[in-house]
Amino acid sequence: MAEMQPETMEVAQRAFKQFTHGLATGAWQPFVDMLTDDFTFWFPMGKFHGLNVGKERASEFFEYVSEAFHGGLSVTLDRVTSNDTTVVFEFRDEGLMWGEPYKNRVAVSFDVRGDKICAYREYFGSDGKSN
Amino acid sequence: MAEMQPETMEVAQRAFKQFTHGLATGAWQPFVDMLTDDFTFWFPMGKFHGLNVGKERASEFFEYVSEAFHGGLSVTLDRVTSNDTTVVFEFRDEGLMWGEPYKNRVAVSFDVRGDKICAYREYFGSDGKSN
Repeated sequence: MAEMQPETMEVAQRAFKQFTHGLATGAWQPFVDMLTDDFTFWFPMGKFHGLNVGKERASEFFEYVSEAFHGGLSVTLDRVTSNDTTVVFEFRDEGLMWGEPYKNRVAVSFDVRGDKICAYREYFGSDGKSN
Repeated sequence: MAEMQPETMEVAQRAFKQFTHGLATGAWQPFVDMLTDDFTFWFPMGKFHGLNVGKERASEFFEYVSEAFHGGLSVTLDRVTSNDTTVVFEFRDEGLMWGEPYKNRVAVSFDVRGDKICAYREYFGSDGKSN
């Protein structure tokens, strides 16, 4: 079995901390600083559904997220899995979306390159109303 | 860093093979045989949305899946991550749902206990129309 690269986990954990900081506070710059220039992400629904390419597009998305979840989203991390280059975080989140109660179950899968995140994929495990 | 249990990966890989066999053919018994008696699963939407408890409920679900995807669902595995007890499979699937074209991106997270799966959580990364 291939040995795990400790750096992969370290970088991903640092990025996830900044990701949840962005969700909670709207301060996304520390997370954006950890993205490669050719960063891409997949999102499950809405106006950012599908593949999104580039850091600029990512910044637009995070701005949109912080408008939708104006008071911030709180995250409860349940589980972390990894391989040599990818780390998956399973968590539940909770907050207000456009002022209405919001809850979901989420998996985000971060691909690590060097000390940065080069891609992630987001998956929803519930309906935005329960978690 | 905790050392990976090779058995966890082995059991999960075997279970995933039976899971995709069920999706493709409707033959779910080999997968059901790998579930613990207290097995639970979370599903993101529809009539099985939320937490489902027990093997009987699981069998009902798999029967429903094979009715919805009568001709079977084909799976393309993209990525596998793990820790000591959990293995996450990221894949894309494709087929016909109630006769209409269906495509999705999916993450399933299998919890392993001994040589069985004691729980899984399913997450959707797209809208059922593209992957």
